[in-house]
Amino acid sequence: MTDPTSPSKPLGPIARRIPPGEDRERLVCDSCGFINYVNPKIVVGSVALWEDRILLCRRAIEPRDGWWTLPAGYMEERETTIEGAQREAWEEARARIEIDALIGIYNIPRISQVQMIYRARLLSPDVEAGPESREVGLFGWDDIPWDHLAFPSVLWALGHWRETRDRPAFPPFAEPPEGL
Amino acid sequence: MTDPTSPSKPLGPIARRIPPGEDRERLVCDSCGFINYVNPKIVVGSVALWEDRILLCRRAIEPRDGWWTLPAGYMEERETTIEGAQREAWEEARARIEIDALIGIYNIPRISQVQMIYRARLLSPDVEAGPESREVGLFGWDDIPWDHLAFPSVLWALGHWRETRDRPAFPPFAEPPEGL
Repeated sequence: MTDPTSPSKPLGPIARRIPPGEDRERLVCDSCGFINYVNPKIVVGSVALWEDRILLCRRAIEPRDGWWTLPAGYMEERETTIEGAQREAWEEARARIEIDALIGIYNIPRISQVQMIYRARLLSPDVEAGPESREVGLFGWDDIPWDHLAFPSVLWALGHWRETRDRPAFPPFAEPPEGL
Repeated sequence: MTDPTSPSKPLGPIARRIPPGEDRERLVCDSCGFINYVNPKIVVGSVALWEDRILLCRRAIEPRDGWWTLPAGYMEERETTIEGAQREAWEEARARIEIDALIGIYNIPRISQVQMIYRARLLSPDVEAGPESREVGLFGWDDIPWDHLAFPSVLWALGHWRETRDRPAFPPFAEPPEGL
């Protein structure tokens, strides 16, 4: 592995070992010494509302293909967490949103994820499924498909949204103590 | 690249290309199709106090070798953000801390970092330099080496700590609008 930023340049070989001065295994290139640090990934998303209805997306991809989720996904390089949540709303539901507050920071250490879910307002009720959604919809609280939510964190964020819906500012919630 | 989780197995060759169905370049293995997603990294740290004095560390590593910083570093896999901040306080200053509130979430998109800095209490004033620190110290507000702080985010976190020191709970601050 010589230069991971150079287009189309073949890289390798890479092995798993503890680099000098460190205390845990990393992916290391045996020819150039490059260390590929793997760290937790950030998922950014939103509870986005049009009036009193919440935007949900039915997933078209694994995991949990066919189940309902909030518009959310992996944060990309060179964007902010808020820009990432806005991008995901567009990619998954063709929704333009305005971020308001941070509802929760949910750690899921088992899969090395940190999910940051914002409260947001839809700028228009015109939403439609992006390539990773089978369908999208705006749901009143009682119409949410509670038995078909894709992930526990969707349930956490919806609950924390409801608990704080009338509060302009508040500290973000965390995952429940028991974790996943 | 066959199995990045398998110890000592050589991997490669890897090239930079846009995978099918995606919209940006990733590092892809040409033999097995593995995609090495590179996403922003999380830095976790703390403004940790013993009575009214703040723990600072003088860096022994680049970047900013010799400059003062808060105990903070890259979050590791399979830990939570709070566990990461506690681990960094131990590694850099042999400090045991109790986390209290989240002071700020500082996005630095230029370098694809998200810094999460907590308010914390030292469980003991006995601190000493870990391998990545030249020295560590407990500083009253007026004694902080303001002209020798390593990073802008150290200044942001200290200012936001001071602004909220008497508040039990508050929404986390963000980076200043102008960014870095």
